[in-house]
Amino acid sequence: MEKDRKVTEINDLGEFGLIDVLSKFARNNEKSTVLGIGDDAALVNHNGFETVVTTDLLLEGIHFDLIYTPLKHLGYKAVVVNLSDIYAMMAEPKQITVSLGISSKFSVEAIETIYSGIEKACAFYEVDLIGGDTSASLTGLCISVTALGVVEKGKAVKRNTAKVGDLICVSGDLGAAYLGLQILEREKQIFLDNKNIQPELEKNKYLIERILKPEARRDVVRQLKAANVIPTAMIDISDGLSSEVMHLCTQSKTGCVIYDENIPINPEAISTAVQFNIDPSVTALNGGEDYELLFTINKEDLSKIESIFDVKVIGNMIAENEGMNLVTQSGKTYPLTAQGWTSFRDVNKA
Amino acid sequence: MEKDRKVTEINDLGEFGLIDVLSKFARNNEKSTVLGIGDDAALVNHNGFETVVTTDLLLEGIHFDLIYTPLKHLGYKAVVVNLSDIYAMMAEPKQITVSLGISSKFSVEAIETIYSGIEKACAFYEVDLIGGDTSASLTGLCISVTALGVVEKGKAVKRNTAKVGDLICVSGDLGAAYLGLQILEREKQIFLDNKNIQPELEKNKYLIERILKPEARRDVVRQLKAANVIPTAMIDISDGLSSEVMHLCTQSKTGCVIYDENIPINPEAISTAVQFNIDPSVTALNGGEDYELLFTINKEDLSKIESIFDVKVIGNMIAENEGMNLVTQSGKTYPLTAQGWTSFRDVNKA
Repeated sequence: MEKDRKVTEINDLGEFGLIDVLSKFARNNEKSTVLGIGDDAALVNHNGFETVVTTDLLLEGIHFDLIYTPLKHLGYKAVVVNLSDIYAMMAEPKQITVSLGISSKFSVEAIETIYSGIEKACAFYEVDLIGGDTSASLTGLCISVTALGVVEKGKAVKRNTAKVGDLICVSGDLGAAYLGLQILEREKQIFLDNKNIQPELEKNKYLIERILKPEARRDVVRQLKAANVIPTAMIDISDGLSSEVMHLCTQSKTGCVIYDENIPINPEAISTAVQFNIDPSVTALNGGEDYELLFTINKEDLSKIESIFDVKVIGNMIAENEGMNLVTQSGKTYPLTAQGWTSFRDVNKA
Repeated sequence: MEKDRKVTEINDLGEFGLIDVLSKFARNNEKSTVLGIGDDAALVNHNGFETVVTTDLLLEGIHFDLIYTPLKHLGYKAVVVNLSDIYAMMAEPKQITVSLGISSKFSVEAIETIYSGIEKACAFYEVDLIGGDTSASLTGLCISVTALGVVEKGKAVKRNTAKVGDLICVSGDLGAAYLGLQILEREKQIFLDNKNIQPELEKNKYLIERILKPEARRDVVRQLKAANVIPTAMIDISDGLSSEVMHLCTQSKTGCVIYDENIPINPEAISTAVQFNIDPSVTALNGGEDYELLFTINKEDLSKIESIFDVKVIGNMIAENEGMNLVTQSGKTYPLTAQGWTSFRDVNKA
């Protein structure tokens, strides 16, 4: 830590001053951005396309703990979780708005750090920050992001259009973010008990990056488009595989079979789950915050899907009256249960 | 108060249950709404028009005090403050998204009450609620609204396009919301000191309605369009007249003269200001939360503006190097100062 680093109090700057400071992080490069920050509202021109809109709210103490969440990562993640929703429609994100509620303990530099993460995500995913709101907060930090995307008319992939017989696919691997969070929570406790002990995070770098700096699967969406595979239904995995599969089934009026042995889990996640005495499959099914894509395809597209990097078939859609099922590695069938990872239950636990 | 009224705990319902409960308040009637609540993102089709996007964050303890803010009014206002920004572009709002962070003290019925206010505003202003996010909050209530509107390509009225010689106009009256807030704060103190004393609010109904249930000036925008008046610049008044005039001038690179005697102030506001020992003009200039429209017109449009209900000319744009000036009723000229009403200063005061 640099001791002499300049710290400007937000109160000295005022809201308009703060907006000026933050405006410089919004570089509008997108052709369809007509007007960005600096007026009552932002203008987006989407001639002949459909505008896709999504929004997510991140609250201190619920979605993140500032003890172990670097502010730059937090800004990055706040954008990514929204973009993930846009990609889950097979759409391309184009613009975001960001509202921040900031407690007085934050310096302007701290807020700039959050925005530098936002800017980094915008640059990587090629989206424009076109507006927002900033306010004092009497309590914790609050980040609300809305993302706009475009998709060719009628081409958005929804949740309610899977058919019986479709194959269920998932990108990446699951459960790692949940385990990363468990490690951070453990190290936090150790640190709070003895502040001389430095946290051991290096050996679980992958898991920790999955919780602190997730990525949206633009690459998968683009590969699917390039391979001419149009998923029959799609959702992103924010609350755990189980819960998201059940959303697809319920909305599409189908049942499903998921084969536990096919669920992709990273080796680091498996060994860490064992260390925490948790079944690795449970972290994949109920952990959440993976931001992978879960989608269904017509089984005739199987050969096309096999050439796509980082996508695995984990089951198939069956008739609604056959239920939503998990087949374990020993061959037993259990009904899927959506434990999910809802922020309301988190509070319950606290 | 009905003692036996059923109260459902949010924790019993879970997030998905809550979304189901809230979804029924979203009736998508707008032709351009392709897909609303229930998927990863919402779809809006705005063929040949520009999409207008704005967002506002309302935080408990900063923007509202639940001791005297009815939840239904709060939901209504959270929508209106966003629509006001859309109208201030001379655009028509079409859709909103709403994210709520809710502390565990809230019952489902309380949240439904907030949404009933949101629904009421949506119905009155003919906009669709198309998405959002709900989350637990460890601290206060948090409401983030994003509004989308449409405007004919190139027809949005911005802040930076006023010209020297233009007339400065304002709708409605100013300062009433600020005074309404002062009354609510006074009655809150009286109530906290002696809980047997019922607040006296009836005689200041107008002022209290201005702070608790403001309206966006759709009527003024529609009258301007009907009269074929295209303002040269426009902004809505959320931080006080002074601050907003200075925004128009700074962004348009002009100066201004505002005539104090022309600033519209309601008689109830004048008498209440006197009672509080505040100059009524100060409440108009710096009070904020009026959600009136401030705009400039070419002086050739003066005769057209005179037929428009509830709009008054309060000054004119002059050269930038002549400064931003207020002429008092005694004829003295002072430089305008933007005290505004920023939420950061509110924290400072607390």
